[in-house]
Amino acid sequence: MIPAPYLLYLGHSADFIGIKTSRGLATFRRDDCVGEFRHDDCPLTLDLPRLTMAEGAAAGAKTLVLGIANSGGSMGEDLIQDAIAGLEAGMNIASGLHQRLRDEPRLVKLAESKGLQLFDVRDPPADLKVGNGYARAGRRLLTVGTDCSVGKMYATIAIADAIRARGIKADFRATGQTGILIAGAGVPIDAVVADFISGGIEMLAPARDDDGWDVIEGQGSLFHPSFAGVSTGLLHGAQPEALVLCHDPSREHMRGLPGRKLPSLAECLEANLQVARLTSPDVRAVGICLNTSGLGREQALELCKMTEAALGLPCTDPIAFGVEAIVDAL
Amino acid sequence: MIPAPYLLYLGHSADFIGIKTSRGLATFRRDDCVGEFRHDDCPLTLDLPRLTMAEGAAAGAKTLVLGIANSGGSMGEDLIQDAIAGLEAGMNIASGLHQRLRDEPRLVKLAESKGLQLFDVRDPPADLKVGNGYARAGRRLLTVGTDCSVGKMYATIAIADAIRARGIKADFRATGQTGILIAGAGVPIDAVVADFISGGIEMLAPARDDDGWDVIEGQGSLFHPSFAGVSTGLLHGAQPEALVLCHDPSREHMRGLPGRKLPSLAECLEANLQVARLTSPDVRAVGICLNTSGLGREQALELCKMTEAALGLPCTDPIAFGVEAIVDAL
Repeated sequence: MIPAPYLLYLGHSADFIGIKTSRGLATFRRDDCVGEFRHDDCPLTLDLPRLTMAEGAAAGAKTLVLGIANSGGSMGEDLIQDAIAGLEAGMNIASGLHQRLRDEPRLVKLAESKGLQLFDVRDPPADLKVGNGYARAGRRLLTVGTDCSVGKMYATIAIADAIRARGIKADFRATGQTGILIAGAGVPIDAVVADFISGGIEMLAPARDDDGWDVIEGQGSLFHPSFAGVSTGLLHGAQPEALVLCHDPSREHMRGLPGRKLPSLAECLEANLQVARLTSPDVRAVGICLNTSGLGREQALELCKMTEAALGLPCTDPIAFGVEAIVDAL
Repeated sequence: MIPAPYLLYLGHSADFIGIKTSRGLATFRRDDCVGEFRHDDCPLTLDLPRLTMAEGAAAGAKTLVLGIANSGGSMGEDLIQDAIAGLEAGMNIASGLHQRLRDEPRLVKLAESKGLQLFDVRDPPADLKVGNGYARAGRRLLTVGTDCSVGKMYATIAIADAIRARGIKADFRATGQTGILIAGAGVPIDAVVADFISGGIEMLAPARDDDGWDVIEGQGSLFHPSFAGVSTGLLHGAQPEALVLCHDPSREHMRGLPGRKLPSLAECLEANLQVARLTSPDVRAVGICLNTSGLGREQALELCKMTEAALGLPCTDPIAFGVEAIVDAL
């Protein structure tokens, strides 16, 4: 386990989505966050105290969380220098980037000499097996999306919480670095070797017979040409009885790919149901989650109503309006 | 490059498909193979001289190729002992298994002390990028399958050869360990980190403007719950203008999954075209390749004719009848 409390790293980031790991911790584990570290050119804030490395350590931070995500997940010299400064100040370092802290000899050496730890959250379990798709016991819900970073993790956590609030067992099953940091466990599914995608999810959400739900965090999108392989394996491994489709209505093109249009909700839902049927023939869609943070409350409600009417499914913004309608549909 | 000639390892294998890497080399690089190594309980042969390790080395073998493939790709103690014997006899070792030779300290130590090399063919390139799906120049054909191990590699090599025989440039682009050993290059796509599947194929078959073809080896199947994520990313990264569907009519269930039925050819073709359209909107199917090795010649011809009539596409067995009809359709 990664020692809390945390100092959240924003670095030089000017991309709200790029800091999603730091933001996720600030939202769901706020009591464990002493502050945020950002450079002068970073226009973003998580409304936590802005602290230097030394101030963060003095405020009790045990771990500096490099909670930024960039496509490809590499680590620039800037980031390495900041990680070095974090270690010098006496904090462990945690990172969810593809490029590993342990592959940077300067960090390894310094951490060792200081008796501190490096946590590569994206390291997959060593004992993965290939999936088999055989029917297994248990109730499973999976969030899917029209694109990457459209709010799947938020929706997943909200649904797991709402099921539990009704006295039914439910576990949030994390598949990305942010979710894993929040939950304290999970399988970083975009980082496993390609042959083990579905098998990794079968391990994350194994058969259960306690009438409880595994609420599984989706990744990517069947319509994102960079990552659809991950989304496909996730659908097959999850063997979900229920799908929730997540969408950001303000997204103008697929993330990272100017010019590539998003699919329609209906087209996206149908494609996900079709792929899911390979291992879960009776899979059904139970709701739509919109990220309406860019809209006013009235506009947002209106959009949810219109979407509900168009698709015949409950539609909500999990943060603005909760997920009760979707949990009712379960 | 892996030094030839080779001694091909069959070990204790009793599974004709399980020895496909050794068999591929015996078929397509036969002049480079001095013999086969098998234990007494191995009922298979590649019709090469059966040699001990010492005899193989004496016959000039520079490398022992551990050309067996098992689901999951682990390396048992038997295999390690045989690899040790190969090194003791003075041969380098090459392996396409997921589990790496270099992760077995006994092999690393012995190879070092003998001045021999260990080749992990399944090591992906270090500089992979995520795919982007943007339209790129060049003509590309991809083989897809109803299942794993149904003859995609054979079909791909045959098609590349047949295009070249007509005076048009064509390159076989290998995506699996067997193909990579045959071609001497390629990207082991089932071994890359999941986020890089489509990007790995974009690197393997980059834009080209010489009117030549990239003939890309498919992997897995959209209908195989263990590996469909790989097949999906491969389709997106390949951005193929043409698909060839490969099928083994004798297959009773999806490979490794008793009880799971194969899709129909029509259903499989339609699903592949649909997924491919994300990055190649005008993709078309140009032919069907059947592995009819279990049938008599008359039966095989009859089956090809029936399939041709049913699907409206040229159908052939690449080994028995060649691929001219498919190349005509290009």
